[in-house]
Amino acid sequence: MSREELTKIILPEDKIPKFWYNVQADMPNPPAPPLNPRTKQPATPEDLTPIFPMGLILQEVSQERYIEIPQEVRELYKLWRPSPLYRARRLEKALDTPCKIYYKYEGVSPVGSHKLNSALPQAFFNKAEGIKRLTTETGAGQWGTALSLACKLFALECTVYMVKVSYEQKPYRRIIMETYGAECIPSPSNRTATGRAFREKEPDTPGTLGMAISEAVEDAAGRDDTNYALGSVLNHVCLHQTIIGQEVKLQMEMVDDYPDMVIGCCGGGSNFSGIAFPFVPDKLKGQKIRLIAVEPSACPTLTQGVFEYDYGDAAGLTPMLKMYTLGHDFTPPGIHAGGLRYHGDSPLVSQLFHDGLIEARAVLQKGAFEAAVMFARTEGIVPAPESAHAIRVAIDEALLGKEEGVARTIVFNLSGHGQLDLAAYDNYLSGNVQDIEFSDEALQESLKTLP
Amino acid sequence: MSREELTKIILPEDKIPKFWYNVQADMPNPPAPPLNPRTKQPATPEDLTPIFPMGLILQEVSQERYIEIPQEVRELYKLWRPSPLYRARRLEKALDTPCKIYYKYEGVSPVGSHKLNSALPQAFFNKAEGIKRLTTETGAGQWGTALSLACKLFALECTVYMVKVSYEQKPYRRIIMETYGAECIPSPSNRTATGRAFREKEPDTPGTLGMAISEAVEDAAGRDDTNYALGSVLNHVCLHQTIIGQEVKLQMEMVDDYPDMVIGCCGGGSNFSGIAFPFVPDKLKGQKIRLIAVEPSACPTLTQGVFEYDYGDAAGLTPMLKMYTLGHDFTPPGIHAGGLRYHGDSPLVSQLFHDGLIEARAVLQKGAFEAAVMFARTEGIVPAPESAHAIRVAIDEALLGKEEGVARTIVFNLSGHGQLDLAAYDNYLSGNVQDIEFSDEALQESLKTLP
Repeated sequence: MSREELTKIILPEDKIPKFWYNVQADMPNPPAPPLNPRTKQPATPEDLTPIFPMGLILQEVSQERYIEIPQEVRELYKLWRPSPLYRARRLEKALDTPCKIYYKYEGVSPVGSHKLNSALPQAFFNKAEGIKRLTTETGAGQWGTALSLACKLFALECTVYMVKVSYEQKPYRRIIMETYGAECIPSPSNRTATGRAFREKEPDTPGTLGMAISEAVEDAAGRDDTNYALGSVLNHVCLHQTIIGQEVKLQMEMVDDYPDMVIGCCGGGSNFSGIAFPFVPDKLKGQKIRLIAVEPSACPTLTQGVFEYDYGDAAGLTPMLKMYTLGHDFTPPGIHAGGLRYHGDSPLVSQLFHDGLIEARAVLQKGAFEAAVMFARTEGIVPAPESAHAIRVAIDEALLGKEEGVARTIVFNLSGHGQLDLAAYDNYLSGNVQDIEFSDEALQESLKTLP
Repeated sequence: MSREELTKIILPEDKIPKFWYNVQADMPNPPAPPLNPRTKQPATPEDLTPIFPMGLILQEVSQERYIEIPQEVRELYKLWRPSPLYRARRLEKALDTPCKIYYKYEGVSPVGSHKLNSALPQAFFNKAEGIKRLTTETGAGQWGTALSLACKLFALECTVYMVKVSYEQKPYRRIIMETYGAECIPSPSNRTATGRAFREKEPDTPGTLGMAISEAVEDAAGRDDTNYALGSVLNHVCLHQTIIGQEVKLQMEMVDDYPDMVIGCCGGGSNFSGIAFPFVPDKLKGQKIRLIAVEPSACPTLTQGVFEYDYGDAAGLTPMLKMYTLGHDFTPPGIHAGGLRYHGDSPLVSQLFHDGLIEARAVLQKGAFEAAVMFARTEGIVPAPESAHAIRVAIDEALLGKEEGVARTIVFNLSGHGQLDLAAYDNYLSGNVQDIEFSDEALQESLKTLP
């Protein structure tokens, strides 16, 4: 080796992007507008003010290509950003592949995932408009943890409704949210009318993100000092996450490389859109690049859902969104990747998928864990079960490149580490993780409930 | 703000030090030699070869000031090094102190602590001499996790004897070691003669690091293909950790600053020596700098122990080391900072403390957690309970500076994050953590067992 080879590609702190990238400015077909659930007419900003601050509502509908990141948020991004882009040399060697594999590591954030990228600006814009308290839902717990810290840093109170099955599987998640000063409640709960209704209908429900969203929205709508914050799906959340992909582009330039494909796991779409959207303009200009969203086979929204208007939550309290959906009544099986258990998907991701600009792939749970353990044993980092889905496809593509004798450049988003998800690894290592077949019957039942 | 203020001070990857710093070259009084426990004569290299490779034995006794880091180890350091030095601006603001507080964050390693700095070279030098398997002990689990990963990266088998009380308090620790492919056994166990003897003597023992060391040493001594690895105390371990302080010195230069004091928690001494030793030559040259080792009041080795020869383990299998000790028979109470529950201390740290080059301070458990929660809520990172001891003293010093109106520069080592220690935070937040008074009677009993 004549020159030392880089393992991490690091940007200096002053290269943290100053703007978020808004893909709406470049989409060939703009996303259909959200509809007011009562009137079925396009929702007005006023429809949203009971639960969102105007600063975020304006971002939600903005057509501006670049939206400035407030200085206060950028200062807080410096707690961990720019995040490193790694060259996975040891994984490549273990696979004996001619492909180059890079991963963007968002787990360096103090909460261990990419979710803080949006939690901070959401807390900031709420604080700026006089809000005292935020409510939210969390599945795997990554989003709830991020919002708990963001609220503490901006001196807001925080209440997190956590999907019951995750609350029970991941006691450490509750504790870390409480360490940041937040309140964490298993959902469905007795705290809200919708929660009580879900419990009455199905006392043993494991809960879903859709149910937890209903509870958090109801809580926020009922108090003037309280707003609601969502960790994925909405346009402004995807917008905030684009800081990931913008950094990746600068980092790839530093090593004179460019991806043949960009891979992210996809539940509501936040980490996938974050890494993928900044590459959309290149693709529109003719650059050959594949953008691959990876979802669990147990909740295959893009690969088996329908592109229709549906509610974002289980109780039908939110605006109706045009998105790929399995029906808001769909209860995904209790897989370990709790952050991917969502019936719908980001309207932006959905429209771009519909238009053929992005691809989708569904993978089974055991294969995702197998990839995650291989990754941990070569690269050292134990991945979040959600991120493991992206690793599975990155490995599959690297093996395909080997089979075909083509040296492709693969970039994936390692959206978080799995140190709070170790119970899931225990299950996998002891042979207790099952692949869950998707039930077409359940889907057909659920789709009947589309509004 | 006319210029952007740095939050993280980052070195480029090629600035990872190429040498470890060996404080033995500069000590006014060299450490007393280890003694063979049978002959009470200075141990020869041959006494150590049954459990250590010659590469590490030579480091143990070397008087060279700089020892080259093998290229293979340095390549692996790049998985997370150089680690960031943070300016704790939010903590400073919360304390309203004129002092500047910096922290070196070793929790960015894939295993979440500084322990990988020594685990990798230990695995490397064993592998180079044909060893197939390593045994070790672990208290909090940080060292066992690091050695598990290091062994996997160098294709060695790994067996970890984990102090029973930690094994029970921290199930995730076992799982992460298993995820890296290691075997993890609660100690004392039935696997070894010493383990069986400890269990017979005291069936309900919570275990100690000293007992776990005895078991790991017995296991290694009994098999030709197996060596033993220690995560702290020994000279070569402190040597490997000096990469921390060397980076800190470069990072402080980058911002034209220099510490008035350097603080690290101290159990066996590995993270403290790592950050402090590279500053010893400056102090010897007349630089005004304080080096402060912080230990738990429940196990106050430096502040209440005696400076005598004692065994490194509970069963008396190891060479006798001249060190501050509470007696190898001392069972520290089951505090949450399991990594600090060790009866002895590094002979190098002990000699330097004896010679007045370093200071020691003991802090109570509740105060450490209070400091840790304040840190998490301002800087975002949830600290390991061990590191919380260093934070307690850093905060106390920053408050003292405020009282005295003196703007001192404080640097501490945040040796690891606490995401696998959240059960301890749960106990603290629910009011179930007690300060444990040190029993002088127990100390006097234990000191009677000195060899």
